[in-house]
Amino acid sequence: MYERVWTVRFSDTDMHGIAHYPRIVDAVHETSDMFMQEIGWPYWRTHEEEGYGLPLVEANFEFERPLHGGDEVTVGLTPDLGNRSVRFTYEARVEGDLSFSAYEQRVCQATGAEGAMPIPDALREAMEPYAAD
Amino acid sequence: MYERVWTVRFSDTDMHGIAHYPRIVDAVHETSDMFMQEIGWPYWRTHEEEGYGLPLVEANFEFERPLHGGDEVTVGLTPDLGNRSVRFTYEARVEGDLSFSAYEQRVCQATGAEGAMPIPDALREAMEPYAAD
Amino acid sequence: MYERVWTVRFSDTDMHGIAHYPRIVDAVHETSDMFMQEIGWPYWRTHEEEGYGLPLVEANFEFERPLHGGDEVTVGLTPDLGNRSVRFTYEARVEGDLSFSAYEQRVCQATGAEGAMPIPDALREAMEPYAAD
Amino acid sequence: MYERVWTVRFSDTDMHGIAHYPRIVDAVHETSDMFMQEIGWPYWRTHEEEGYGLPLVEANFEFERPLHGGDEVTVGLTPDLGNRSVRFTYEARVEGDLSFSAYEQRVCQATGAEGAMPIPDALREAMEPYAAD
Repeated sequence: MYERVWTVRFSDTDMHGIAHYPRIVDAVHETSDMFMQEIGWPYWRTHEEEGYGLPLVEANFEFERPLHGGDEVTVGLTPDLGNRSVRFTYEARVEGDLSFSAYEQRVCQATGAEGAMPIPDALREAMEPYAAD
Repeated sequence: MYERVWTVRFSDTDMHGIAHYPRIVDAVHETSDMFMQEIGWPYWRTHEEEGYGLPLVEANFEFERPLHGGDEVTVGLTPDLGNRSVRFTYEARVEGDLSFSAYEQRVCQATGAEGAMPIPDALREAMEPYAAD
Repeated sequence: MYERVWTVRFSDTDMHGIAHYPRIVDAVHETSDMFMQEIGWPYWRTHEEEGYGLPLVEANFEFERPLHGGDEVTVGLTPDLGNRSVRFTYEARVEGDLSFSAYEQRVCQATGAEGAMPIPDALREAMEPYAAD
Repeated sequence: MYERVWTVRFSDTDMHGIAHYPRIVDAVHETSDMFMQEIGWPYWRTHEEEGYGLPLVEANFEFERPLHGGDEVTVGLTPDLGNRSVRFTYEARVEGDLSFSAYEQRVCQATGAEGAMPIPDALREAMEPYAAD
């Protein structure tokens, strides 16, 4: 699992001081971006240098507890590797309590092509240390 | 069904001219807000005057075709009414082709309370003309 | 002057029901995008087909009155054309009262180049009907 | 001066891999939020517990060099304290080169009131260590 801490900002919150859900989606997406950078495969590298990407086919969010301005949210990402696709599963906790969970189903696809391609071995090997046992 | 047209903006798009998915989530959320305003129950009225809201418990997005800057996207919202909850189902099309679909599962909840309350009759009646047969 | 109406959404507002200022900046930027599309020169056309753009060198915002969820904000854009640059000036009103004003100073620049180029005549002619006398 | 590092994300960038300017504004605003939290006066504390805030009256941004996905941007904030107002001045650098500068002019104002109030001593003392000599 890869983890990062997201601090909920005042500009993320509504009239009850609760985070607007599109701001939660921003934080999930940012986490996927941080993970790809952490493993040495930032999205701009895969797109520009390698000629493929991991476009999203589905995203799902379940909200358990509201988040407030100032909350320190530990967002964990676990990649679940298929042959031509990868699912990023997220769990977000504040002081141990589950705030939201989510997943992003992504496929591996050559830029401009239709259909999926196998995940290249080097990318697979970079993700595997973060996968669940 | 309630419908609105969302134009994909340059600032919504990535290096391939394709809309970033958090911007699509923004457009879905904006559509729910426009719908509530259309039926005379904007979120700020339910929260401030009526003392309840429709917090989100789950959101799901399926992406069928990429969206490009300048695309005119017809986003349709259909409410599916339960006793204490409502599901907003979305279908988004460009020139008739499905671009993405989504749903938001919402519960009716008094401000500050736990657990769900029945959807008030007046709100139910305002939504029913947009529900599927 | 080009005008559009921006409705402040619940997801744009803070704990006092007042619009977060980054959401106002989004609305200003969206207005410039709508204007360029209106005159037949959307940003994606200038970039992709014409090989130049109007990158921003300065932006300024003055906030006169807070905006609330549900406010219908008439945002006016007036282009002020120089030889190699253009300033978009904005005034935003709710029921006639000034809410905020802003400007964006943009230069005309070939993609990938340094320094400014003259604004092409066709783009200039498309903007002129919206300029102040 | 207070400093933080902002990493430009793929979802912040356009078709040239350059950051959209509303995303830069988001990063500036986030920096002010992080600063207020750092000094022990997060916006939610001043608003909820203290009954006043620091609403924005003007914001200005000057863009010197484009930012790209993956850039590590050191954003510095220097508060310049007046009696009833404070200006936050920003300088953002990538590997030492100025990318953008900005300022936010804020006034101290009781919640719901008109006009400005003196900045409370405790808040002033919390900011002073970060002010320029």
